[in-house]
Amino acid sequence: MADKNNYCVIMAGGIGSRFWPMSRTSMPKQFLDILGTGKSLIRQTFERFSDICPVENVFVVTNKAYKDLVLEHIPELSESQVLLEPMMRNTAPCIAYATYKIAGLNPEANIVVAPSDHLILDVAQFNEIINLAIKETNETDALVTLGIKPSRPDTGYGYICFEDKKADDTRVKNVLQFTEKPALDKAKEFLSAGNYYWNSGIFIWSLRNIKRNFEEHLPDMAELFAAGADKFNSPEEQAFIDERFGDCDNISIDYGIMEPAKQVSVVLSDFGWSDLGTYGSLATHLEADADGNSNPRENVRYYEAKNNVVIAPEDHFAVIQGLEGHIVVQTEKALLICRKDDEQMIKTFVNDLKNHGPKEQV
Amino acid sequence: MADKNNYCVIMAGGIGSRFWPMSRTSMPKQFLDILGTGKSLIRQTFERFSDICPVENVFVVTNKAYKDLVLEHIPELSESQVLLEPMMRNTAPCIAYATYKIAGLNPEANIVVAPSDHLILDVAQFNEIINLAIKETNETDALVTLGIKPSRPDTGYGYICFEDKKADDTRVKNVLQFTEKPALDKAKEFLSAGNYYWNSGIFIWSLRNIKRNFEEHLPDMAELFAAGADKFNSPEEQAFIDERFGDCDNISIDYGIMEPAKQVSVVLSDFGWSDLGTYGSLATHLEADADGNSNPRENVRYYEAKNNVVIAPEDHFAVIQGLEGHIVVQTEKALLICRKDDEQMIKTFVNDLKNHGPKEQV
Repeated sequence: MADKNNYCVIMAGGIGSRFWPMSRTSMPKQFLDILGTGKSLIRQTFERFSDICPVENVFVVTNKAYKDLVLEHIPELSESQVLLEPMMRNTAPCIAYATYKIAGLNPEANIVVAPSDHLILDVAQFNEIINLAIKETNETDALVTLGIKPSRPDTGYGYICFEDKKADDTRVKNVLQFTEKPALDKAKEFLSAGNYYWNSGIFIWSLRNIKRNFEEHLPDMAELFAAGADKFNSPEEQAFIDERFGDCDNISIDYGIMEPAKQVSVVLSDFGWSDLGTYGSLATHLEADADGNSNPRENVRYYEAKNNVVIAPEDHFAVIQGLEGHIVVQTEKALLICRKDDEQMIKTFVNDLKNHGPKEQV
Repeated sequence: MADKNNYCVIMAGGIGSRFWPMSRTSMPKQFLDILGTGKSLIRQTFERFSDICPVENVFVVTNKAYKDLVLEHIPELSESQVLLEPMMRNTAPCIAYATYKIAGLNPEANIVVAPSDHLILDVAQFNEIINLAIKETNETDALVTLGIKPSRPDTGYGYICFEDKKADDTRVKNVLQFTEKPALDKAKEFLSAGNYYWNSGIFIWSLRNIKRNFEEHLPDMAELFAAGADKFNSPEEQAFIDERFGDCDNISIDYGIMEPAKQVSVVLSDFGWSDLGTYGSLATHLEADADGNSNPRENVRYYEAKNNVVIAPEDHFAVIQGLEGHIVVQTEKALLICRKDDEQMIKTFVNDLKNHGPKEQV
């Protein structure tokens, strides 16, 4: 049963340029149905929280440019539930805004903060874990993060090192240290050590705990938003944000709060997670045929082809012959063909588009 | 100056399935701007004849399904200039229909018959050659065909063997023999022999000469169309064709008339010709960058790619990385990626589409 003290903050301000040409500045990744499930990632994220908090307690923080898209994908939201950033900052200002807005609504709030563009397969286990985390932050002074059991020495993720006491079979652990994207050797060591989990970027905390941490570790930001206490949830909220948001430091919640925080817990999770950060990580969640070719929408026919990921709009059709180890993405107006091993080059392609056009393709 | 006795018959009934997915049953190759010139192939063919015959002497023979497309691409034509076949036959019935229709208009007609989907680069030389050919058929009993100087031992073309007399420097030669698509060894022999030219499928003859040949070599077909003499160029023409066209043998003009004809001349030509039969033959007419990549519409960006032909609609954009020796064709609703060396497989892809769908892609 959704607890009326539970709140959910969905972060939806990013662009996801590593998913070009599916994602664009005008249509970021979270609004796409990347896996061909019939639902966009932000819609899936919203629905995942239906058993955790009431609809009126869900807030989406996004860029002003995406207000209409958010309301289109989640028509259940009222306009006051869509928090509009006037410019790109980082996750700390985004979360501070939501925190101080919720503070004006319910001082007993528990807050779940989640990215809008991740994949979670086992929603039942996710619910269970979120409830464990809420219990933890209510009963202690801890900020809580969800750790994902690593399945490979991925160098693209952050790692959480936790205290692994003997005879402790609970899923909630004391966090010793965060490590950002490690080198491959380090990542391999982490995997064998056993007490390193991936940082999912999903956080759970009581309003009380997170406010105290903002005041302690990012006091300027805390002061800035505290000064707007009488503006939040009033007609003056947007004008206040438009005026002051740009003064916030561009800093992530991990670096600004989680790393310096005195008490952080991690809940060990294994609910089938991906940040869908790249086509490669997407591919690991797609079924493949005997030749290793993925075809999420079943509108691709392969001949003499191996280990490709081909994505085309639902009403398109593709014939792929004599191709191996490639990513192929077709959209209404663009085509990308790129070797899987070189997909980090997609950022280069997008930068070249920004600099040399055509602009409408970015 | 366009001679009012000159007539032009453009054959436009084919589908060009080797150009899938650019060409479809609903949009055959002749209606496409394959080379990105801004004009469809049939439009280019029509304009090529502007100095040879008056507009009202141009006839297009096509399938009933393509009537509107023909009039859209050549709005200069009246409906009576578009001859509609009720079903696919071959070139002999198509040409017989046009011949007997023109017979009712002008017994002194000279007729140029040309496919609608070929490329010709040097239109001035083409005009000169056509006039030479008209002169030849008027002054003799010969049927005339245009031979193209072969640039490679292509096994996909028919070859014309001509009599190569010493001290004969005219371009008009007596044809000794036609040879359909030869084996590679034979094709190489033909090239070294020097008196073998490619058969362009462009024919020139006087009405008198071609009628006599139909009567002699395809007497049933001649009789069938002669019986409609009072129907042609009247409101009853289409009903007559709908009733009788299906009775014609499915036979090509080459096999039915040119090979058995007693007197055939070839005009040796070198005006930059291609039947654009395949993407490979198309590629030989496209400019390529230093890495051998073709980009007819300049809307493709290549990275670490070699010897590809990439074709995308004008308002599309493509990024191609890590690809070598491939054909990539993107259309509004389809994508083909195929190794250049395997492009004969395109017929297989189209057959598979016919048999297993999606039907709308054929």
